[in-house]
Amino acid sequence: MSTRVGVLGATGAVGQRLIQLLVPHPEFEIAALTASESSAGRTYRDAAKWRVDTPIPDDIADLTVVGTDPEDVPDDVELLFSSLPSDVGAAVEPEFVEAGYVVSSNSSNGRMDEDIPLTIPEVNADHLGLLEVQRDERGWDGALIKNPNCSTITMVPTLAALDQFGLERVDVSTLQAVSGAGYSGVTSMEIIDNVIPHIGGEATKMETESRKLLGSFDGAEVTLHDADVSASCNRVPTLDGHLENVWADLEADPSIEAVAEAFESYPGVDLHSSPDRLIEVFEEPDRPQPRLDRMLGDGMAVSAGGIEATTHGVQFNCLAHNTMRGAAGASVLNGELLLEEGYL
Amino acid sequence: MSTRVGVLGATGAVGQRLIQLLVPHPEFEIAALTASESSAGRTYRDAAKWRVDTPIPDDIADLTVVGTDPEDVPDDVELLFSSLPSDVGAAVEPEFVEAGYVVSSNSSNGRMDEDIPLTIPEVNADHLGLLEVQRDERGWDGALIKNPNCSTITMVPTLAALDQFGLERVDVSTLQAVSGAGYSGVTSMEIIDNVIPHIGGEATKMETESRKLLGSFDGAEVTLHDADVSASCNRVPTLDGHLENVWADLEADPSIEAVAEAFESYPGVDLHSSPDRLIEVFEEPDRPQPRLDRMLGDGMAVSAGGIEATTHGVQFNCLAHNTMRGAAGASVLNGELLLEEGYL
Amino acid sequence: MSTRVGVLGATGAVGQRLIQLLVPHPEFEIAALTASESSAGRTYRDAAKWRVDTPIPDDIADLTVVGTDPEDVPDDVELLFSSLPSDVGAAVEPEFVEAGYVVSSNSSNGRMDEDIPLTIPEVNADHLGLLEVQRDERGWDGALIKNPNCSTITMVPTLAALDQFGLERVDVSTLQAVSGAGYSGVTSMEIIDNVIPHIGGEATKMETESRKLLGSFDGAEVTLHDADVSASCNRVPTLDGHLENVWADLEADPSIEAVAEAFESYPGVDLHSSPDRLIEVFEEPDRPQPRLDRMLGDGMAVSAGGIEATTHGVQFNCLAHNTMRGAAGASVLNGELLLEEGYL
Amino acid sequence: MSTRVGVLGATGAVGQRLIQLLVPHPEFEIAALTASESSAGRTYRDAAKWRVDTPIPDDIADLTVVGTDPEDVPDDVELLFSSLPSDVGAAVEPEFVEAGYVVSSNSSNGRMDEDIPLTIPEVNADHLGLLEVQRDERGWDGALIKNPNCSTITMVPTLAALDQFGLERVDVSTLQAVSGAGYSGVTSMEIIDNVIPHIGGEATKMETESRKLLGSFDGAEVTLHDADVSASCNRVPTLDGHLENVWADLEADPSIEAVAEAFESYPGVDLHSSPDRLIEVFEEPDRPQPRLDRMLGDGMAVSAGGIEATTHGVQFNCLAHNTMRGAAGASVLNGELLLEEGYL
Repeated sequence: MSTRVGVLGATGAVGQRLIQLLVPHPEFEIAALTASESSAGRTYRDAAKWRVDTPIPDDIADLTVVGTDPEDVPDDVELLFSSLPSDVGAAVEPEFVEAGYVVSSNSSNGRMDEDIPLTIPEVNADHLGLLEVQRDERGWDGALIKNPNCSTITMVPTLAALDQFGLERVDVSTLQAVSGAGYSGVTSMEIIDNVIPHIGGEATKMETESRKLLGSFDGAEVTLHDADVSASCNRVPTLDGHLENVWADLEADPSIEAVAEAFESYPGVDLHSSPDRLIEVFEEPDRPQPRLDRMLGDGMAVSAGGIEATTHGVQFNCLAHNTMRGAAGASVLNGELLLEEGYL
Repeated sequence: MSTRVGVLGATGAVGQRLIQLLVPHPEFEIAALTASESSAGRTYRDAAKWRVDTPIPDDIADLTVVGTDPEDVPDDVELLFSSLPSDVGAAVEPEFVEAGYVVSSNSSNGRMDEDIPLTIPEVNADHLGLLEVQRDERGWDGALIKNPNCSTITMVPTLAALDQFGLERVDVSTLQAVSGAGYSGVTSMEIIDNVIPHIGGEATKMETESRKLLGSFDGAEVTLHDADVSASCNRVPTLDGHLENVWADLEADPSIEAVAEAFESYPGVDLHSSPDRLIEVFEEPDRPQPRLDRMLGDGMAVSAGGIEATTHGVQFNCLAHNTMRGAAGASVLNGELLLEEGYL
Repeated sequence: MSTRVGVLGATGAVGQRLIQLLVPHPEFEIAALTASESSAGRTYRDAAKWRVDTPIPDDIADLTVVGTDPEDVPDDVELLFSSLPSDVGAAVEPEFVEAGYVVSSNSSNGRMDEDIPLTIPEVNADHLGLLEVQRDERGWDGALIKNPNCSTITMVPTLAALDQFGLERVDVSTLQAVSGAGYSGVTSMEIIDNVIPHIGGEATKMETESRKLLGSFDGAEVTLHDADVSASCNRVPTLDGHLENVWADLEADPSIEAVAEAFESYPGVDLHSSPDRLIEVFEEPDRPQPRLDRMLGDGMAVSAGGIEATTHGVQFNCLAHNTMRGAAGASVLNGELLLEEGYL
Repeated sequence: MSTRVGVLGATGAVGQRLIQLLVPHPEFEIAALTASESSAGRTYRDAAKWRVDTPIPDDIADLTVVGTDPEDVPDDVELLFSSLPSDVGAAVEPEFVEAGYVVSSNSSNGRMDEDIPLTIPEVNADHLGLLEVQRDERGWDGALIKNPNCSTITMVPTLAALDQFGLERVDVSTLQAVSGAGYSGVTSMEIIDNVIPHIGGEATKMETESRKLLGSFDGAEVTLHDADVSASCNRVPTLDGHLENVWADLEADPSIEAVAEAFESYPGVDLHSSPDRLIEVFEEPDRPQPRLDRMLGDGMAVSAGGIEATTHGVQFNCLAHNTMRGAAGASVLNGELLLEEGYL
């Protein structure tokens, strides 16, 4: 039987992607869509300007949007996916959890809080244990879990695969798609024939979130990984797919083949949205490319290529679809993990 | 009185830029345009498909193109600018120099040869002394000087400015414009909504040429700088202007202000094409941007921004116009240096 | 049982699309791939630079490419899809037909020849009767059938639907995707931040082919439709999907609703690649758009929108995927028609 | 001595272009910059996010922005350039004129009002006579003059040149740059790899404004030209420069040469911002192109090409820079006309 789920902030770009992923989902059934007060009471068709490349399903289109308030969401909804703006998320996500809901959130608020699990199921599913700490400390009935930022998710699986060689330092340069800023986040005047070498707050997210994801959980707290991570983030004129140039300094001195093998053999998880192979490796030096490779594994795989040895370790490129693996798909995958692990 | 100059490979993209720069030049006068045998004998208007954004001057358009052969170039031409394909350059540049011509070349052949000066006048004009070694060893009457690759030129002035703090390591990620590949080098199908994370041979050029440019010349040979340079090169959908993300590890621990001051106070040279200030520094974190800033200093300035401290040194972005400062303008500037230093 | 088919010119952009469509096709089975002499003898994987967005199937990749010569193609191949350059097509297509093959060709040669059917199955399947004339006149055993140019196909279904109102004149402006020029046909330097208001030969193709497609066949010859068609063709920076602004002068004065109804009710055909509804009509004035709507009907539907009355008739926009409905898919659909009508 | 001028709505995209044109202007001197109340009292540097490709002049940057209110503008300012949003323009432009100011406005409000001159100086300077009617009817001390919409301006000079052959009907398809929608008017998600076949209100503007511009003024009123004009407007991924495909039906049957001659010989006016030749004609069929040709005549020329005969008249393409000739430059040129004709 399907788990009844809701989407907090359902009209935005990530909200629409969430609906696109949840409609055909075998385990989840959409039972509530929330938005700001100005949209509450309208049909979803009317409240959202649907821009996803598959048509909006009729039964979803006819749902009445409710306010983003625990009292407006039916009690039999067990799991909420949140793609609220971070300031709104910071205000209302705790209210939902206090009211007993389990929330899988893509919003950036609270990601580094000590008692909030920040998880990529294939990388650090064990951090879910933090939920016990969370319930103890906050007295919450529900649970709040976060997925990391899109640019962080793209890189971390590859770093996790390399950590067996002793990850010491990461310099990473990103070439990020415009969809990462939301539908109206980057104007055409800004980006045609241009590149913007700065994305507010993005470098810091990559530098801190990656160390939490790669950190160790001892049952009580997460100790950040001690690698030194430095990011430089660029917006480029692509629609979807973040490409990243990574320099990883390693204690050991693995061959290129060993690095490729570490990527390709990195274990996946047995969850619906997780691809058969988490990290695809290209031998062609000019791959992966955003337009050609972003939909690998239905948009949930990470791809890597251009692996070269450096004096200090290895250099390579990685890519993931920023609104699938990097946002909506990440939240759905965390929801599947919560279901699998019995948190619902 | 003007120096009579010629352009080897005058019909290509860099050849056209060279003509655009040389026509209004106060010190040079175009007296010969060469191209492949199939173009020889035709007017330049007819032989070249002019694509530069200023109209082709009538007197240039009416010049008869000659073959790329020393016998076809008038004897009173003293200086030749070469933008030949590297395999052609490797074959014919030595013939011209043997015949007594001074050649300022943008072609990539021979840049790392021990007796060929690879120069950016503001950075290592003293390497011109290698021409004595060159004449001695090769028995040439003329002289052959090279400018570096466009992506190298963009970065090296900033590294030269930082070397006072003890440059130890450089990781650099480039976002390069399509014009760097020539007029037909990148197809629209390859680059619309896409990024290509590899440019053949480019990373190696950056890694080797930068160490030669920053190296020391003792009157007999150039000792490469011992910094460890690792480059990752990407093609992005911009027309002109290479943007680069640089991590520079330094022995000393300068403040951001000291780094900005080192950039801004880096000395220029008193040559016609050199800008008043070589390195412009932006305080806005999202600058420089290719479309907005590539024409600073008439396309001959380098700009920098986004300076941030790292655990090991400093991170920043730099930008230069790849076909001006990075190619045609670089060759012209080297020609001005040769004239100034009495090599003509 | 599947019909064994081959692809003439299998390594090019349209050839690759043909393979992409034929591999999962329920009626056809690929048995021969031809290319130029330089590719003959190599595996397809090796001979083609595969650029389609689905992976190349292994069994296709391992096929040995043969020369584009009737003697090199196995005798049990019944149907050949041709995407040869038009000059090559003009030379070799007749050789294949003379040798008994049935050829469904996307190449532009011969499209206006009086005894060669130029067909869109949903529009003028009856023109297939010309094959009798063709066999009589040329003494061929096989048959040669053409599909029209991509920009023609996009518009003609809508004109066919309007002809019930007495089509008198058409002014059409096209905004064509770069893929229409082949993989390397438009350079990035030409099209970034730009539009090219001319495509060699394209306007003439639209003006003549559309009148043949809309013409009447009396069993002996096709009489061209007498509408006056004038086209203006532009290349724009889109990857796939030709959008066209059409002014259609009509004898009658139908309402906008009647025009929309004529589009939506235009009958389809019962062939595998033909969509359930040939012409989709949008009510939103800003649709169809290339990126959002080109894949309607698996890339085989035409869409229309922005219908408005003019003093002389009607103005509207239409869109189709230029390499699917407009090229490879058009040839496959014609092949299905030939099979259905018993020509194989 | 310079005329003191002001800019109403100085912080927007057109306002910035106006400042860029007015700063070096030999006849005008900027003495007032107005914006919304939230910007009033701040320096211009602070109130405007300067995005024009030339640096903001220091003395302009230090000006204090005032509210868009006649009481806030110094009395010695004689001429105001308005680039207000049309609803704001409709409300406040009359207040300024009532207070005695002469206003040259780019805002779309009131363009079709019977007593408001809508002028392109090279086309219908005589319509300025409407100002007498305006003063009589409204009792205004000042004067209000409008320039047409950017897409209208691009086409009308060519139509004016053709009217000697009896202009009867115009079908026009536009390919418009994103800057026409203002800095944030088109998002990158909307336009990368895409075209939008609709611009709200734009077609109607072209259809009505062009008939007023080409209309005749008898000293009392303007009679609209009776040509039938139908426009279809598309947004394409270019930064600046509107390209238009025009079908002009003509009573006479001029040769292509006669049409080209009519374009090239169309008389200019002796005003500072008017180019030496108003309409440049290209013989190359693929010109004009937006990126290559938008800056002809310092952005104030119109260019034409691709002239072909049709059954009913002629087909051709035309191009103009939409924020120069099509907006800010148009207003400045009208200001120059007002000065020349003694209205200041």
